[in-house]
Amino acid sequence: MARFPFSAIVGQDEMKQALLIAAVDPAIGGVMVFGDRGTGKSTAARALAGLMPPISAAKDCVYGCSKEDQARYPDVCGSGPMRKRAVPFVDLPLGATEDRVLGALDLERALRSGEKAFEPGLLAKAHRGFLYIDEINLLEDHLVDLLLDVAASGENVVEREGLSVRHPARFVLIGSGNPEEGELRPQLLDRFGLSVEVRTPGDIDTRVEIMRRCARQEADQQAFADEWADEEEAVLKRIDRGRKRLAKVDVPDAMLVKAAELCMAVGADGLRGELTVMRAARAVAALEGAKKVGEAQLMAVAPSALRHRLRRDVLDETGSAARIERAIAEVF
Amino acid sequence: MARFPFSAIVGQDEMKQALLIAAVDPAIGGVMVFGDRGTGKSTAARALAGLMPPISAAKDCVYGCSKEDQARYPDVCGSGPMRKRAVPFVDLPLGATEDRVLGALDLERALRSGEKAFEPGLLAKAHRGFLYIDEINLLEDHLVDLLLDVAASGENVVEREGLSVRHPARFVLIGSGNPEEGELRPQLLDRFGLSVEVRTPGDIDTRVEIMRRCARQEADQQAFADEWADEEEAVLKRIDRGRKRLAKVDVPDAMLVKAAELCMAVGADGLRGELTVMRAARAVAALEGAKKVGEAQLMAVAPSALRHRLRRDVLDETGSAARIERAIAEVF
Amino acid sequence: MARFPFSAIVGQDEMKQALLIAAVDPAIGGVMVFGDRGTGKSTAARALAGLMPPISAAKDCVYGCSKEDQARYPDVCGSGPMRKRAVPFVDLPLGATEDRVLGALDLERALRSGEKAFEPGLLAKAHRGFLYIDEINLLEDHLVDLLLDVAASGENVVEREGLSVRHPARFVLIGSGNPEEGELRPQLLDRFGLSVEVRTPGDIDTRVEIMRRCARQEADQQAFADEWADEEEAVLKRIDRGRKRLAKVDVPDAMLVKAAELCMAVGADGLRGELTVMRAARAVAALEGAKKVGEAQLMAVAPSALRHRLRRDVLDETGSAARIERAIAEVF
Amino acid sequence: MARFPFSAIVGQDEMKQALLIAAVDPAIGGVMVFGDRGTGKSTAARALAGLMPPISAAKDCVYGCSKEDQARYPDVCGSGPMRKRAVPFVDLPLGATEDRVLGALDLERALRSGEKAFEPGLLAKAHRGFLYIDEINLLEDHLVDLLLDVAASGENVVEREGLSVRHPARFVLIGSGNPEEGELRPQLLDRFGLSVEVRTPGDIDTRVEIMRRCARQEADQQAFADEWADEEEAVLKRIDRGRKRLAKVDVPDAMLVKAAELCMAVGADGLRGELTVMRAARAVAALEGAKKVGEAQLMAVAPSALRHRLRRDVLDETGSAARIERAIAEVF
Amino acid sequence: MARFPFSAIVGQDEMKQALLIAAVDPAIGGVMVFGDRGTGKSTAARALAGLMPPISAAKDCVYGCSKEDQARYPDVCGSGPMRKRAVPFVDLPLGATEDRVLGALDLERALRSGEKAFEPGLLAKAHRGFLYIDEINLLEDHLVDLLLDVAASGENVVEREGLSVRHPARFVLIGSGNPEEGELRPQLLDRFGLSVEVRTPGDIDTRVEIMRRCARQEADQQAFADEWADEEEAVLKRIDRGRKRLAKVDVPDAMLVKAAELCMAVGADGLRGELTVMRAARAVAALEGAKKVGEAQLMAVAPSALRHRLRRDVLDETGSAARIERAIAEVF
Amino acid sequence: MARFPFSAIVGQDEMKQALLIAAVDPAIGGVMVFGDRGTGKSTAARALAGLMPPISAAKDCVYGCSKEDQARYPDVCGSGPMRKRAVPFVDLPLGATEDRVLGALDLERALRSGEKAFEPGLLAKAHRGFLYIDEINLLEDHLVDLLLDVAASGENVVEREGLSVRHPARFVLIGSGNPEEGELRPQLLDRFGLSVEVRTPGDIDTRVEIMRRCARQEADQQAFADEWADEEEAVLKRIDRGRKRLAKVDVPDAMLVKAAELCMAVGADGLRGELTVMRAARAVAALEGAKKVGEAQLMAVAPSALRHRLRRDVLDETGSAARIERAIAEVF
Repeated sequence: MARFPFSAIVGQDEMKQALLIAAVDPAIGGVMVFGDRGTGKSTAARALAGLMPPISAAKDCVYGCSKEDQARYPDVCGSGPMRKRAVPFVDLPLGATEDRVLGALDLERALRSGEKAFEPGLLAKAHRGFLYIDEINLLEDHLVDLLLDVAASGENVVEREGLSVRHPARFVLIGSGNPEEGELRPQLLDRFGLSVEVRTPGDIDTRVEIMRRCARQEADQQAFADEWADEEEAVLKRIDRGRKRLAKVDVPDAMLVKAAELCMAVGADGLRGELTVMRAARAVAALEGAKKVGEAQLMAVAPSALRHRLRRDVLDETGSAARIERAIAEVF
Repeated sequence: MARFPFSAIVGQDEMKQALLIAAVDPAIGGVMVFGDRGTGKSTAARALAGLMPPISAAKDCVYGCSKEDQARYPDVCGSGPMRKRAVPFVDLPLGATEDRVLGALDLERALRSGEKAFEPGLLAKAHRGFLYIDEINLLEDHLVDLLLDVAASGENVVEREGLSVRHPARFVLIGSGNPEEGELRPQLLDRFGLSVEVRTPGDIDTRVEIMRRCARQEADQQAFADEWADEEEAVLKRIDRGRKRLAKVDVPDAMLVKAAELCMAVGADGLRGELTVMRAARAVAALEGAKKVGEAQLMAVAPSALRHRLRRDVLDETGSAARIERAIAEVF
Repeated sequence: MARFPFSAIVGQDEMKQALLIAAVDPAIGGVMVFGDRGTGKSTAARALAGLMPPISAAKDCVYGCSKEDQARYPDVCGSGPMRKRAVPFVDLPLGATEDRVLGALDLERALRSGEKAFEPGLLAKAHRGFLYIDEINLLEDHLVDLLLDVAASGENVVEREGLSVRHPARFVLIGSGNPEEGELRPQLLDRFGLSVEVRTPGDIDTRVEIMRRCARQEADQQAFADEWADEEEAVLKRIDRGRKRLAKVDVPDAMLVKAAELCMAVGADGLRGELTVMRAARAVAALEGAKKVGEAQLMAVAPSALRHRLRRDVLDETGSAARIERAIAEVF
Repeated sequence: MARFPFSAIVGQDEMKQALLIAAVDPAIGGVMVFGDRGTGKSTAARALAGLMPPISAAKDCVYGCSKEDQARYPDVCGSGPMRKRAVPFVDLPLGATEDRVLGALDLERALRSGEKAFEPGLLAKAHRGFLYIDEINLLEDHLVDLLLDVAASGENVVEREGLSVRHPARFVLIGSGNPEEGELRPQLLDRFGLSVEVRTPGDIDTRVEIMRRCARQEADQQAFADEWADEEEAVLKRIDRGRKRLAKVDVPDAMLVKAAELCMAVGADGLRGELTVMRAARAVAALEGAKKVGEAQLMAVAPSALRHRLRRDVLDETGSAARIERAIAEVF
Repeated sequence: MARFPFSAIVGQDEMKQALLIAAVDPAIGGVMVFGDRGTGKSTAARALAGLMPPISAAKDCVYGCSKEDQARYPDVCGSGPMRKRAVPFVDLPLGATEDRVLGALDLERALRSGEKAFEPGLLAKAHRGFLYIDEINLLEDHLVDLLLDVAASGENVVEREGLSVRHPARFVLIGSGNPEEGELRPQLLDRFGLSVEVRTPGDIDTRVEIMRRCARQEADQQAFADEWADEEEAVLKRIDRGRKRLAKVDVPDAMLVKAAELCMAVGADGLRGELTVMRAARAVAALEGAKKVGEAQLMAVAPSALRHRLRRDVLDETGSAARIERAIAEVF
Repeated sequence: MARFPFSAIVGQDEMKQALLIAAVDPAIGGVMVFGDRGTGKSTAARALAGLMPPISAAKDCVYGCSKEDQARYPDVCGSGPMRKRAVPFVDLPLGATEDRVLGALDLERALRSGEKAFEPGLLAKAHRGFLYIDEINLLEDHLVDLLLDVAASGENVVEREGLSVRHPARFVLIGSGNPEEGELRPQLLDRFGLSVEVRTPGDIDTRVEIMRRCARQEADQQAFADEWADEEEAVLKRIDRGRKRLAKVDVPDAMLVKAAELCMAVGADGLRGELTVMRAARAVAALEGAKKVGEAQLMAVAPSALRHRLRRDVLDETGSAARIERAIAEVF
């Protein structure tokens, strides 16, 4: 299947913003996508991965290490000159085992030659790219937990069966799930940085426009790609600018106070809410080329940063989105 | 058991149309057949497979690769000159394991000779033919998911236990199930392109006619085959024509709008509904020799394309078929 | 335990008829026996198997192949001259695994000598004889499904772990079950050709007669066998005649119509009902030496052919037997 | 723990009668003992086993084959001269696996030397003795079924993993269970020949007498054994006489009629009830030295032979014992 | 952790009496301790084990065999001169497997050298000492059953995987459990000889005294041990005297009658109740230096011997202790 | 992720006190932390571990043995001169197996070279440091039990598969859990020495202050560390002083009485409550430089020592904290 251009995706602005934030600051901690089947959740993630320029990686390195990785992980990185590779996009299969995800002892080699070799898993494949988990609610909790740990630390440490391997695994974790099908435990949800909702568009014009673009791509894939080349280039430039500026964006104290007030207003447990609001707002500011975070950025990211952190309130049946908007209205 | 001629099947027009669409455009994404036990679901699928002319495949290739496959998958395809083979029809056994379906490490060979060899699975056998899954609702979800992934991509990628194999696996996926026996999850159903319903015929003439044809075939198989040879030939020609024309059939914008309106009218989640309506209508037009898709083709395929994508509406107890017809009446 | 003569079984006429039909036309598709514990279900099946004259089979062939099998399956059949063997009767043990039933890789040989050898299973043992499954409702569904597949095709195909074996496995499948203990799924029941009910006889004379015959056999086994030798001979002749005539029995169109009417009257799903009625009636005609099927034969087999195919009707609490009789009364 | 003399057991006459019947005619098919914990169920079985005179068995034979066994099973029996051995008493451990019960491939030897050797199981140990299963209701159904099959046929046939072993396994099967703890399925219960109930004695004299005998044995084991030596000798003689006479005891037709009437009166499913009544009565007659079965023997064994075969009657809450007595009163 | 002196334990007289009885007569069959968490159940058991003088055992014997064991089990006992060892105290870990408890084939050695060696389990370690099982209600039933079998017979017999080992395993079995956490099945409970209840002391003086002793021991372990040395010595002497006298204590008939009356009065199933009353009373008499059992000893042990054997009486909600006291009042 | 300074943690005084007590007296038996997600539970534990000065350990020792350990465990400790190492902090992964926690036979080495080597587990890694278990309520009970055993004894004893290893494992066990997610069994909770509750701060100033400190650290990690260096140094000194003084702190009898009264007032089962109150108070006194325990220390530690030991009282719905405060008010 041909890649659909990221910029040709109609609507779904919140999801696109979240993906861009994660591309600029992977430390934001993963993006959880809630929504109907067939709304292009994986299409958007694939589109962003496909858009990225190739990375430079050691030729023989199974992890795709960068020069910096090579210096930091001399034991695991293969040698050889640098070569360009596509940004990896790994789709975690339903029913994947812990061994397949983390990597494991290469049993066959151990039995054959008595050598303890590590067989890298899907986390190694995802290094420097995207790890997409469809229907993450069907995955076992301890695997989700492991994935979130690795996503947070940027490193995969495997110690068992006499193996002791530590390899880089920095990736943007994207999970998707349909809330009708069972939910993640709140403890796990809370560890995702951002969450977004995608819905089937309700107006006919949008739907027809989507149809039209699909039909056009199916008709002539190359022509369609050419048509969107400029828009794609523009997105790439924004990401690039965002990454460069991120470290320099200022977060004024007044904005920290707003973030805290917002979290108290919506009743989020713990403190991950306000920290995520702060970081996501900073990334948005960087994408926009702003020098400091302002109210606009806080409001732009609040729904994604807080939606999955609301305490359930049996007396208040208002949906999460409405509760966050109400809180924004109160605070700003 | 002798093959029953496809054209000798009495009634079941919707199922036959869906199979023909899938034969013309396998990218439609699989056919789900709902219906009573003993109504000839597998008979029709086998009949279509048996009708197809033999394919030309590399003599020593376990995957039955075509010349094009050989060029694209030089690593896995066996060599040798081209030979004719029957179109494969694989009946997935109840209780088949993931290893048996996808293929796996040939453990015995690994232990004996220390060589890592791939033992192709049922997906390899089904390449260029049909994969039939009776009572698909009894299969584990993650297997159905895998099958749909492979059916959609036309490629089977196995990476584990140190194996890394990628082989072609293009097939028409046909699942059958009895809704009384438990359902597929909506997320999985949605991934099937088309769905059809078959029922025990209710009028005595049809039933007697079916009986008569069965009896006649049991009495003299060869004579029965001869009797239907011309009809079979005609079906083959339609398929052939459809495949050739498919790429050239035009889908006017007005028809896209109709497709979208139809999906909104029935309340289908996501966008797979209208895309399938468009593709299926295009295939029907190709089978009929038409140059562009018109309302007739849209209406002809709408039930198969949408039946399994209706959102459940607790207030509206109308059956799916009726709801689609009502929507057709509204839109056209 | 000594074999009880088939003809010495008191009563149980429906079961005996079904076994004889299956002996004449194994393609009828298996016999399901419902009934109380301790009513001699397995005794009757064993009795029929024991009555059959020995078969002629290749001396070294583990499958007991006939000359025809040898020609058709040269790869699996052992060589050597033909020898007589008893007709096999295999009693499937509760808890048998798929490997044990189908056959499997001979692991020990593979590990020892690196050779992939097939270790035939119970299906191989049952070839040309009977496969009896007591309490079939306790077997896993996928095993029942496999057994029905093999019984229908007369061939066992094992493809896995690098094995690819195809051997003949033609047998009469007989399942027994107590409906109080959980039922087979309707989908599986429907695949059995015939079903019969056996009950503990309710009149004292029959019970005493059964007792007397058992006591007599226990007292002097040889004398008892001699006493029934002529009756047994007569049964053998009927089976022999039936097999020879089967192919020539005519099924008039009018009888097909009656069969269809009957199935509609009882409300059987699908079309297996009428096809089984037709085939079973044909076998009974052959056993009786008749040249064509008439109403008598249809009526004789209708209960066995339809009992397990009635749709459940919550408004009609009439038992299956009564519903079939009512339908017979309507149609004939 | 020292053996308690069989004849020193106070009360429990029904259980003792059932054990003696099984000792005389093992083909009766196993004894099921229902009853309270701590009532000496296993003590009585052990006592009978311990009472039996040693058997003569081939010196090196793991199965303890008799001369007759040696002739019949030349392949499995070890050689060497005959030696005396104690009658085996095997106590099946809770949680025993099928392999441990039936015997299995000696895996270690197979791996080490590439030889397929059979490692006999508990059934082999029990040959010519007793197999006691405490809390048989906790055993998996398929194991109980296997045990009953072997107990009925006197032969253990193991065919799997390339093994094909057939060895003698004639033993008296004794199961015990507490009905409060879950029941055997009626299908399995029905396969036991006899069933008895043991209760904690309700009168103080019996309890004190039991206490006194236990205390006496604990005080001086040898003296206690000497005290009961004559009684034990008398029991042994009765068993010996019973075994010799059994084949010659006559069962008059009138008694068969009584047996059938009795079973109909209590409403037993199937025909195992009357056959067991007949056989057990014959064994009791043999033990008593009678030449033919009379009403007294029928009445003596009816409760043990029928108690576990009563159909449940929701309208009649009378206990099994009372229902059998009522039926005896009606019939005799 | 330092051992707490047995005699320094405040209160808990019933538990201490039960442990002393078991130390004098291990054939009593195990002690079950019910009670609140944190009440020093394991402390008391450890204290008694630690108090015992070292045993004399063969130097190289893994089982710690005595001279008598060496003579009786020449095959398993190691050689070498006798050495002193501490009395073993084995704490069965939660989740211990059958292999770990019973011992198993030393797989590694079997694979390496082809030798079948037995690797002794926890039962071997416990020989001549104590086996403590905390929260025995969490252990699988079949393991409890096995442990009780071995405790009763004093011998561990392992026969499987081609192993055939019989080694001595005489130990005092002590189980503890909290009735709030799920109960042992009555069948298993009944097999424990004695049961006691421990509670958190309810008066402040006792609690403070316990605190004070703990604090004192923590302050200066050696001084605390010295302080209690005389008391400990006295306990040791009582045990020693008890063991020597046990065989000679007389149990008058009148006392047997009282024991039986008591069991009938409390409504204990089976006969283990009165036998245990008799044996425990005998052990107490021996500990006290009495020549024969009297009413005082019967009354002293009745609660421990009967508490876990009361039939549940839905109409009588009186606790076990009260019911036993009521019965004692009636009988004595 | 950079370490957050322990002294920079805002609020959470009870948790910080519990961690300091455990650092001073690891024999206190583990700290259980209850509380909302995202409240910095693991941050505080990590902060304390990171604050500790490096330990001196044998260079080649995998256990990180001290000189004292080397003397006590000569068999397991590696040789080589002493080197400084960071205090270990082990985070037990969800789903860790017993083998991974305790250590296990190095199977690969055993198979390859026939040598039985021990592969140390996570307990070995945690020696002389901290073992943190997030969501301990998701761990299997028998693992929690094992961890508590080792934490209490300071030693890990592994005996199975022919291994017999005993190595030092002294660590502070810290478990965290969210009571909404299922609870530990009271028996396990009771074995934790202390328990604390952490909550999301409810006042905006605290939340903003936390935010500000986080932001400052993210902005410039080194500067933030420098800012808190003096405070960290002060904490270190308190711990050091506490450890040195602990053995000399006096616990007056009057205080023991108070402790007992307090436990009776709150209704704690067993005696672990008052012993923990005493020990924790002693540690606090040592941290504060006091010579003897007074009422202030008792009151300071009572909530942590008793909160998880309250008997549930269905009539009293007061929370644990309130019940303890009420008891303090009564007693002091």
